[in-house]
Amino acid sequence: MTGAVTGAVKRIADSTVRRLSVYLRYLEELEGRAIATTSSDELAAHSGTTSAQVRKDLSFFGSFGKRGLGYSVPELTRRIREILGLGREWRVVIVGAGKIGSALSNYRGFAQRGFTVVGVYDNDARKIGRRWDQQTVRDVVELEADARRDRPDIAVLAIPADDVQGEVDRIVRAGIRAILNFAPAQVHAPPGVTIKNVNMAMELEGLSYALSHRD
Amino acid sequence: MTGAVTGAVKRIADSTVRRLSVYLRYLEELEGRAIATTSSDELAAHSGTTSAQVRKDLSFFGSFGKRGLGYSVPELTRRIREILGLGREWRVVIVGAGKIGSALSNYRGFAQRGFTVVGVYDNDARKIGRRWDQQTVRDVVELEADARRDRPDIAVLAIPADDVQGEVDRIVRAGIRAILNFAPAQVHAPPGVTIKNVNMAMELEGLSYALSHRD
Repeated sequence: MTGAVTGAVKRIADSTVRRLSVYLRYLEELEGRAIATTSSDELAAHSGTTSAQVRKDLSFFGSFGKRGLGYSVPELTRRIREILGLGREWRVVIVGAGKIGSALSNYRGFAQRGFTVVGVYDNDARKIGRRWDQQTVRDVVELEADARRDRPDIAVLAIPADDVQGEVDRIVRAGIRAILNFAPAQVHAPPGVTIKNVNMAMELEGLSYALSHRD
Repeated sequence: MTGAVTGAVKRIADSTVRRLSVYLRYLEELEGRAIATTSSDELAAHSGTTSAQVRKDLSFFGSFGKRGLGYSVPELTRRIREILGLGREWRVVIVGAGKIGSALSNYRGFAQRGFTVVGVYDNDARKIGRRWDQQTVRDVVELEADARRDRPDIAVLAIPADDVQGEVDRIVRAGIRAILNFAPAQVHAPPGVTIKNVNMAMELEGLSYALSHRD
């Protein structure tokens, strides 16, 4: 994971951002049930953390809560959405027209949170030109030219392990500054490009480690 | 030897286990190219860490390297596989016969690393009884009874957000002690059951956060 983040909230740790996402999930559940206020204790209990941590995380962004009254659910929801950059549309290209990309683009939270798929790419001649969900699969060599027109913000990289770095380099050349990488390879990007790695093999190895060392 | 490993390495942090997985990827690449030795510098450069961190991580498990000669690739590969519990078969059930589970079970690293799918479950009457990859989808209500026969080690949970905790509870009742959760919900399991969460929405929110706070 790389990427220099600038601006007023530049030193927020990845772990804080992840907890904000978790708080948001619970707040949306409360909103759905028309519950107007919550507390740091309640947020903590539903997020696997402590109320002190909740208060510390939220204090980064100014004062939300009122002592004895707790947090306003609509206000806190709105502010966390704003902090996470969820108030706008993010244009996403998927590189690798396989099951992972398809699962992601069909995931109902994806569109709800403002992520819109604007293109799907592959290098396999058997896939190029075919329908794939709401899209037609394009040749990945066209990514750079297409990006000047489509202006994608985020690339989801879901290809086998071969030449993952080459595809990252192409995505960077296309001017895309955020990559969600499902390919099982360590990749590098220049400063200013953020990469998040989701490595299923590593998650499974974490489980096999835990099972092996339990007894 | 094995006894020494299980005894001594109980308190290894998740972050160390993850780095071992990363080192293993690079070592396997070296093995494929028939390269016999490597160094902490080289491992660090390919793993996004420092050589001091590499030496510290490997020192948990005893002395591998020889000063000036580096690490033996086959020996280090074998030891890390052993530490990660990859020397044996792990029996996996997939709960949720969708694209995520299918992507995972078709992932070539999955079978290579000893993960074998022994059952696929869903609660959707339109899916139960259908072919799904090499399996026939079973009714999830049968999981507990089946588990007494099939003895699964790991459950991959890939269902929508509704009643995720109910499915976790069922998996725990079935005697499964490791869960890879793709469902977008915070879930709880009793002590002795390990859960790894892969939350795509949270990864995307991490990217939208980074993009929002860059300029």
